[in-house]
Amino acid sequence: MTTKAAHINDDLIEALRGIVGDRLSLAEAVREQHGRDESYHDAFPPDVVVYPETTDEVSDIVKLCAARDVPVIPYGTGTSLEGHVAALKGGVCIDLMRLDRIISVNPEDMDVTVEAGVTRKKLNEDLRDTGLFFPIDPGADASIGGMTATRASGTNAVRYGTMRENVLAMTVVMADGRIIRTSRRARKSSAGYDLTRLFVGSEGTLGVITEITLRLYGIPEAVSSAVCSFPDLEAAIETVISTIHAGVPVARIELLDDVQMDAINKYSKMDFPVLPTLFFEFHGSKNGVVEQVETVEALATDVGASDFQWAVKQEDRNRLWQARHDSLYACMALKPGSKGMATDVCVPISRLAECILETRKDIEETGLLAPIVGHVGDGNFHVILLIDTEDKDDLEICKAFNERLVMRALAMDGTCTGEHGIGYGKMDFLVAEHGEAVSVMRAVKMALDPQNIMNPGKIVRV
Amino acid sequence: MTTKAAHINDDLIEALRGIVGDRLSLAEAVREQHGRDESYHDAFPPDVVVYPETTDEVSDIVKLCAARDVPVIPYGTGTSLEGHVAALKGGVCIDLMRLDRIISVNPEDMDVTVEAGVTRKKLNEDLRDTGLFFPIDPGADASIGGMTATRASGTNAVRYGTMRENVLAMTVVMADGRIIRTSRRARKSSAGYDLTRLFVGSEGTLGVITEITLRLYGIPEAVSSAVCSFPDLEAAIETVISTIHAGVPVARIELLDDVQMDAINKYSKMDFPVLPTLFFEFHGSKNGVVEQVETVEALATDVGASDFQWAVKQEDRNRLWQARHDSLYACMALKPGSKGMATDVCVPISRLAECILETRKDIEETGLLAPIVGHVGDGNFHVILLIDTEDKDDLEICKAFNERLVMRALAMDGTCTGEHGIGYGKMDFLVAEHGEAVSVMRAVKMALDPQNIMNPGKIVRV
Repeated sequence: MTTKAAHINDDLIEALRGIVGDRLSLAEAVREQHGRDESYHDAFPPDVVVYPETTDEVSDIVKLCAARDVPVIPYGTGTSLEGHVAALKGGVCIDLMRLDRIISVNPEDMDVTVEAGVTRKKLNEDLRDTGLFFPIDPGADASIGGMTATRASGTNAVRYGTMRENVLAMTVVMADGRIIRTSRRARKSSAGYDLTRLFVGSEGTLGVITEITLRLYGIPEAVSSAVCSFPDLEAAIETVISTIHAGVPVARIELLDDVQMDAINKYSKMDFPVLPTLFFEFHGSKNGVVEQVETVEALATDVGASDFQWAVKQEDRNRLWQARHDSLYACMALKPGSKGMATDVCVPISRLAECILETRKDIEETGLLAPIVGHVGDGNFHVILLIDTEDKDDLEICKAFNERLVMRALAMDGTCTGEHGIGYGKMDFLVAEHGEAVSVMRAVKMALDPQNIMNPGKIVRV
Repeated sequence: MTTKAAHINDDLIEALRGIVGDRLSLAEAVREQHGRDESYHDAFPPDVVVYPETTDEVSDIVKLCAARDVPVIPYGTGTSLEGHVAALKGGVCIDLMRLDRIISVNPEDMDVTVEAGVTRKKLNEDLRDTGLFFPIDPGADASIGGMTATRASGTNAVRYGTMRENVLAMTVVMADGRIIRTSRRARKSSAGYDLTRLFVGSEGTLGVITEITLRLYGIPEAVSSAVCSFPDLEAAIETVISTIHAGVPVARIELLDDVQMDAINKYSKMDFPVLPTLFFEFHGSKNGVVEQVETVEALATDVGASDFQWAVKQEDRNRLWQARHDSLYACMALKPGSKGMATDVCVPISRLAECILETRKDIEETGLLAPIVGHVGDGNFHVILLIDTEDKDDLEICKAFNERLVMRALAMDGTCTGEHGIGYGKMDFLVAEHGEAVSVMRAVKMALDPQNIMNPGKIVRV
């Protein structure tokens, strides 16, 4: 699968070597790996992969590419899910993982500035002695640059928000190689257009994010987890709504349906009831956490929940959450040899029960084996479709199912993607969701990247 | 002061009447009022003021103006502070206060959709029966449209965030009259560029915001206030920092310096110690609030605070906060006949004590009478400069003082404006703050408003 861009030639490669020396690869295996993410989407390898170590090197690389109309694709850990890193038109892949410095930790201000290639686990290891942590947890040990570029969130967004709320500022290399800083470190500002939020979620299509300043939080004094089974999905979701209405600052509230619980029991050798289940995590002071747990237990019991189990000890909590984090592997074990395709709609929470129930009905009518897990405090849930990659029909059936699911969510004032992004997999859904507003996005893209060299073919068609 | 735009003529006025009938004014007093905000900046009256009642009417008005290259200036309650509503090049002022419907309240989703002219107090009155409220409180009873357009915040941003965090979606009339919706009602989304955040804080320069969907919060079970004096500013700010580090979810934490406390005592007939003082408000469950107050009292006492007074009863709390809200009038009473000019820097909290102390020194050296109040949980503070409006030198001295203050804040990685915005008063400071990034803002402006008719002369020069 060769996708050589028009102006890729020996001269360009030599010029790139002039910037990064031997931190450059033309090897097929390396290119193939950099054109593929964790999704079912087809891979498109770039023509060359470079490994800069500084923002200035990134700027020089982008200037070279701009002068020759060559596409630039930023790359982090490759854990995206909508083909974000595919080099659809070939070009230069900028692997940012060697920009891996933690530039400054400011404990008093509860912020940190990192380079794009620092992963969230690495960051939290480094922060441990400060008593602070960075909460956003999309599952994968993704890079902060990639999480920023895709507006990632995950299990504890219900309390701590998404990357949208937690990026204070960033350094960006623009499409012509200029380096800008989007904001200062002040907690709030009304100084001009919010460039920070414009680049969060821009998926490399407006520039290359090289440094990010993040909000941090104090490690809570007390943490407690709980798990609770419900007679049906409605009761589980009613508990979610009443928990949030009661103002309980729950840190995590995850729904797993009976199919998912069955898979977890088999995979993780647990013996949870095979019923719709909520996993909770509570953060706060010792008394505060006890109060939170008691409030939620009362709300759950009111709607017929059973088996409300607390876990305070770290090893018990870890066992519980490990089971949750392993849910994708548990699913795939249900159908050995299959590949997971995760849907990602997010709806207003008042429509969540209806959306999930209609989706369950669709799963049954389509004859799929498809567990559901959800970050239900936000109204976001994933159906894990198990695709036989050898079977083209299977993929088409799953794609049609996902399209029906997206249209159902849009009709409920929801979004086609709560946290995975558009990439090249959801561009048509973006139009269905935003209509005329997509033309405004296109105008922004064309203004900031008039040559369309920044990760072309993602988010909007130009 | 006539500022007739090039293409304002009888034909345009007739066409406008065709849209809004007699909801149009050419009266000098009306125009004069619409060209002036609450700041010291010169007023620039528009040529005509129209009062549409629907988004479609706004769209038709903008289309007319676009066809004739006539400036469009959106207007709410006129409570901005940097000349945001001044019709620098004349044009059509769109007074949005008749778009005053609350379109839909969704208690389960804890959101509400309103038209731009609904004020925050009106909204909270309407919400009372739902048990929900909208927390953002910039002091003035501003319109939600204006608060969105200026990225307003105020006293309780430390807990609830600013308009940036609390606007979920909006309807915008673009510069060519097209109507877009920036987002759905889902709590989070990774679907494309964050147009919502791009329009929050755009000050009418990218389009006219006509409808806004806002996050709501549960009215807390318990509310408590406290006031506490400190031996010096450092001790007060140390308490702010340790409160936030301890994870106390304080709803308000306001600093008033000794000059301000003296003014309040005189104006509101109180007898607070004339010392640096923190005003607190705590929201939560009954036990939670007690725990918060006890934690903060211990932290304050540790650094030598005295007179830690709680107020739980609503009338006592109201008396306390009324004194805080009247602080501007209290200041102006110090120098009868003066006009207040409020500075608005915001710095990382680790630099706040240093920034305020240097500023106090500057106040003394310049010989100003200038109290300081601050939303110190965010690092944001205002110096209230009392200007003798008859004395041109006085204005120049205050402007020079503000310039020094802004440069001091920028050197500390802060911003020239935490919550007031740029308008036409701070455009040079925007360049000092953002440098090269201003050219990115300009590119966005030119892409979305190529004729430069949307509130021209604000935020960026094109």
